[in-house]
Amino acid sequence: MALASHDTEIRVRYQETDGQQRVHHANFLTYFEIGRTEMLRGRGATYRQFEEAGLFLVVSEASCSYRAAAEYDDLLVVRTYVEKVGGASIEHAYEVIRDKTIIASGRTVVVCVDREGRVRRLPDWLLE
Amino acid sequence: MALASHDTEIRVRYQETDGQQRVHHANFLTYFEIGRTEMLRGRGATYRQFEEAGLFLVVSEASCSYRAAAEYDDLLVVRTYVEKVGGASIEHAYEVIRDKTIIASGRTVVVCVDREGRVRRLPDWLLE
Amino acid sequence: MALASHDTEIRVRYQETDGQQRVHHANFLTYFEIGRTEMLRGRGATYRQFEEAGLFLVVSEASCSYRAAAEYDDLLVVRTYVEKVGGASIEHAYEVIRDKTIIASGRTVVVCVDREGRVRRLPDWLLE
Amino acid sequence: MALASHDTEIRVRYQETDGQQRVHHANFLTYFEIGRTEMLRGRGATYRQFEEAGLFLVVSEASCSYRAAAEYDDLLVVRTYVEKVGGASIEHAYEVIRDKTIIASGRTVVVCVDREGRVRRLPDWLLE
Repeated sequence: MALASHDTEIRVRYQETDGQQRVHHANFLTYFEIGRTEMLRGRGATYRQFEEAGLFLVVSEASCSYRAAAEYDDLLVVRTYVEKVGGASIEHAYEVIRDKTIIASGRTVVVCVDREGRVRRLPDWLLE
Repeated sequence: MALASHDTEIRVRYQETDGQQRVHHANFLTYFEIGRTEMLRGRGATYRQFEEAGLFLVVSEASCSYRAAAEYDDLLVVRTYVEKVGGASIEHAYEVIRDKTIIASGRTVVVCVDREGRVRRLPDWLLE
Repeated sequence: MALASHDTEIRVRYQETDGQQRVHHANFLTYFEIGRTEMLRGRGATYRQFEEAGLFLVVSEASCSYRAAAEYDDLLVVRTYVEKVGGASIEHAYEVIRDKTIIASGRTVVVCVDREGRVRRLPDWLLE
Repeated sequence: MALASHDTEIRVRYQETDGQQRVHHANFLTYFEIGRTEMLRGRGATYRQFEEAGLFLVVSEASCSYRAAAEYDDLLVVRTYVEKVGGASIEHAYEVIRDKTIIASGRTVVVCVDREGRVRRLPDWLLE
């Protein structure tokens, strides 16, 4: 069971579609990123604060399964789940939903590092 | 053992980096796409021909593991492997290499569909 | 004096920043596109309807002046103006505003074409 | 008459096309950027060196006129011209050429700034 979940709406931009008239598959990783950023904001924090503290969350694993195409102007919901929190990493899962149908699902692992790229513990204020 | 492999060089563009001064992780899926497209071209075919025949290869699965950052102006090699060929799908694996070090590796499954999105057999000329 | 104007909010995505930790300049043309799309939606139409009628708006001119950087997570307002409507084209002007300061301004000309790329008159429903 | 010019080849990526099956117009600004970067490299310098010296070239003006569509897999030439060199800025002009036909042309002004965003003189090694 997920530790937390959050819904974010995204309107598909023309620039995100490709010659197949569907959202280019790489953009789903960007949608996931928006999902986890907005989840953080929903909890009263921002990723910008994170960087101001000299910390960065870098993606170490990402995957996506595509079930149906998203098209220009579609209104999508990105549902973001926190699956697992480690000392220095967080695992999220995602569902991209259109009209109550899941059109894609995915998973990422982000790792906390400092400016020099060394792995660092997640800050306490994030874990609360 | 891979059925075939192909190397493609990619020079990192400024536009591909993000505020962490590294290539934004979503761009690796685009690098993989360039790798499999150039592999096809190396065999005397182009994906454009494919589309002219009314067929499309859509990505149904994609994943990537990131080991080290790629930076602006880096010269990368995308090594693309054909891992498995099914009746209507192809599984590729990828390594992104800088100075003989693998900085990322990944995997995609593409499925052959027609204009209406129905799954279709891969054309014979592709399989040869 | 502009014929009409419309405000759209855009939250800067991490993927839109570059190694200078500011929004990559090319993304402002995408912001302008979102501005004119949302202006259309605000008037009860969508660009998708436009395409369903076999018509496309292609950009024939675009320019942007950059006064200050936009950064990750900034909340921007894109103010879109209709400057001039011709038989087959529309000229828009744009201001990108953060905290009441204009950080960029620009202009585009879009031309109405059909599937074969021939210039076509703008549809009456759009002009109203 | 331009002070210098340089040709760079670019193969259109699938990710760069949009639902109109042509290169999304914003990508031409990225093509221009590749053109001026490769021009610099052709003269034995790289923009990375520039940043290592604590200097940045930020775009203050950009414009593009689009005459014909570029499509997936097209092989384009970006011809970059240095039009004018000021104390702290450079004006470039660009032509994007396919099969000896100019499909787009544009112009940018870049300004030299330091880490704090203050305007700085262009370094001597760049001017030579």
